[in-house]
Amino acid sequence: MYPDLFRQMKKQLAQLDRWLEAADAFAQAKTFDSSVFLGIRLAPDQFPFAKQVQTACDTARVAAARLTGKVAPAQPDTEQTIEELRARVQGAVAYLDAFTPADFDGAATRVITQPRWEGKTMTGADYFLEHAQPNFFFHLTHCYAILRHNGVKLGKRDYLGTLTQKPAA
Amino acid sequence: MYPDLFRQMKKQLAQLDRWLEAADAFAQAKTFDSSVFLGIRLAPDQFPFAKQVQTACDTARVAAARLTGKVAPAQPDTEQTIEELRARVQGAVAYLDAFTPADFDGAATRVITQPRWEGKTMTGADYFLEHAQPNFFFHLTHCYAILRHNGVKLGKRDYLGTLTQKPAA
Repeated sequence: MYPDLFRQMKKQLAQLDRWLEAADAFAQAKTFDSSVFLGIRLAPDQFPFAKQVQTACDTARVAAARLTGKVAPAQPDTEQTIEELRARVQGAVAYLDAFTPADFDGAATRVITQPRWEGKTMTGADYFLEHAQPNFFFHLTHCYAILRHNGVKLGKRDYLGTLTQKPAA
Repeated sequence: MYPDLFRQMKKQLAQLDRWLEAADAFAQAKTFDSSVFLGIRLAPDQFPFAKQVQTACDTARVAAARLTGKVAPAQPDTEQTIEELRARVQGAVAYLDAFTPADFDGAATRVITQPRWEGKTMTGADYFLEHAQPNFFFHLTHCYAILRHNGVKLGKRDYLGTLTQKPAA
């Protein structure tokens, strides 16, 4: 189960990388600096675009690490350009790529905590379902929504990517 | 696995019901008609809020039905008010509530198709991971983002709901 769920997260991050590429191309076509996107927010008290990208990446990296008893290397949020954000996303995909299915053995019953929970814990199963995965999709979709709201041409196919379909019989 | 994943979808829909309640209260406090929300879009070629809510509900209902060999009753998109949207959401939660874990036996290998795939098929496992679940979170998060973009006071706790945590030892 977890290897499949993280494989899908990797796929979604690869799609995010394409949205960033599209945002850069959109800015070039409109002759504005694409790094303007990094500061755009849908609401003044929401994360700006750069932080949405960083958090989507980190949510996936940290979740894989926590569920497998590892510690994900901290990454400073220093990206200033779309190109640097793309490197961040590609780094997260590479990080997830290094996990094997066996790494997730026992993940469901692992005891998970984090500093802001002040000693409270969750099982790995509950942490993934109730926290990691919803947060991942939350930030991922905010990345998409911010770009769409600002004119970048994306559609549902860009969101989902290629589906594993069998041809008509 | 699927019973857990749908339980989480039910939880997220219950949270969506609270966002709708908050949107209604926000409109009352500002003395505008809360049904204005139903037509709001983040981009002119994205679904408006009402359709985002309807699609989040239907994605969950239809996915549960397809994975268990049932047919989800079609629902016309006739909602005109926040109250009617809340009934739609509550109806989706009730629909999901009627499934038992045993209903999902064999779901991963079930052959799934839909008219727009023109005869192409997906396994239940791929359909859920690559299509149903990402779409569900896509529309759910767009509901949240549209409300936040328009001033409704919501935060990450409203998105995630209560976490299953054990107290500090």
